[in-house]
Amino acid sequence: MNDIYYMKIALKEAEKAYKHGEVPIGAVIVKNDKIIGKGYNLKEKKYNAMAHAEILAITKASKKIKNWRLNGCTIYVTMIPCPMCASAINQSRISKVIYGTVPNTVDKEIIYKILNGNEYGVPVEIVENVLNDECSSIIRKFFKKKR
Amino acid sequence: MNDIYYMKIALKEAEKAYKHGEVPIGAVIVKNDKIIGKGYNLKEKKYNAMAHAEILAITKASKKIKNWRLNGCTIYVTMIPCPMCASAINQSRISKVIYGTVPNTVDKEIIYKILNGNEYGVPVEIVENVLNDECSSIIRKFFKKKR
Repeated sequence: MNDIYYMKIALKEAEKAYKHGEVPIGAVIVKNDKIIGKGYNLKEKKYNAMAHAEILAITKASKKIKNWRLNGCTIYVTMIPCPMCASAINQSRISKVIYGTVPNTVDKEIIYKILNGNEYGVPVEIVENVLNDECSSIIRKFFKKKR
Repeated sequence: MNDIYYMKIALKEAEKAYKHGEVPIGAVIVKNDKIIGKGYNLKEKKYNAMAHAEILAITKASKKIKNWRLNGCTIYVTMIPCPMCASAINQSRISKVIYGTVPNTVDKEIIYKILNGNEYGVPVEIVENVLNDECSSIIRKFFKKKR
C-alpha cells in the first residue's frame, strides 16, 4: 500500500472527529504494512487537552505491541503535529511522520526541531503535503460551520 | 501552603516511580490550594512513551474537573518538563509551572519557548529550582543503581 492509501484512512479518522464536533484531525500508525493504531481528535469529548489524534493513535499502537518503542513505524496525520505530538512521536521512536496540511499560523521550525531532536528521542524522517488539499478542506469546512 | 510543601508531595510521587524501577519524576497539580491531580513516571509499566508524570497528572486533573482547561492551576514537577509535557502544560492552559531540577543535557531555550508560546496554548509562568537538590539527588540515585 502507498502513502495516499494510508492518508485516506487518516482522513476517515478526521471525518469521525468532524461528526463529533471536534477539530477534524486523524492519524494512523503503520508497521510492516499493517495498521497498529488509529485515532482522531477528541479533546472536547474526553475533557483532555492531550486527546489529539496522534496521542490516541500512539497509545493504541503501544498497547497493541506492548512496547513504548515504535521503531520502524510510520505515522500518517492529516495536519502537521503540534509540539506536544511532535515530541511524543520523537520519544516513542516512530521512524517516519507523513502529514497532510500545515496551517499558516504554525511555526514549522520548532516542530521540525522537536521531530529531529535526539535529546529526548530519535530523529524522525518527515514527509509533507500528502493529500494536502483534502486534509485542509475538511478543517476549513469545520471552522466555516462553527462561525 | 507554599511551594516547598507541594514540591515535597511531587517528590513523594517521584519516590513511587523509583520503587517501580521508573525514572523518578513526580508531578502535582494544585488549584485554589487543593490538589486536583498527581502523577509519576510510568513509561515502562504502561508501555507508553507518553506516561510521564505531568501527562498523568494533567489527565487526572482534567477528569476531576471535567474540563480540559486548567486555568488558574499550578503544576509542580520535580524535573523541567520535556517538550511534550511543556506543550501539554501550555495547551491545557495551566497558569504556572514550578519545577525542581534541570539535567545538563536539556536545551532550556526550546522548553521555555514552548511554555511561553501562544500559538497552541497560553503562556505559562515559570519558577525554577524549587528543591533542586532533592529533585536531582533521587534521579542520580536511580541511575547510579541502574549502572
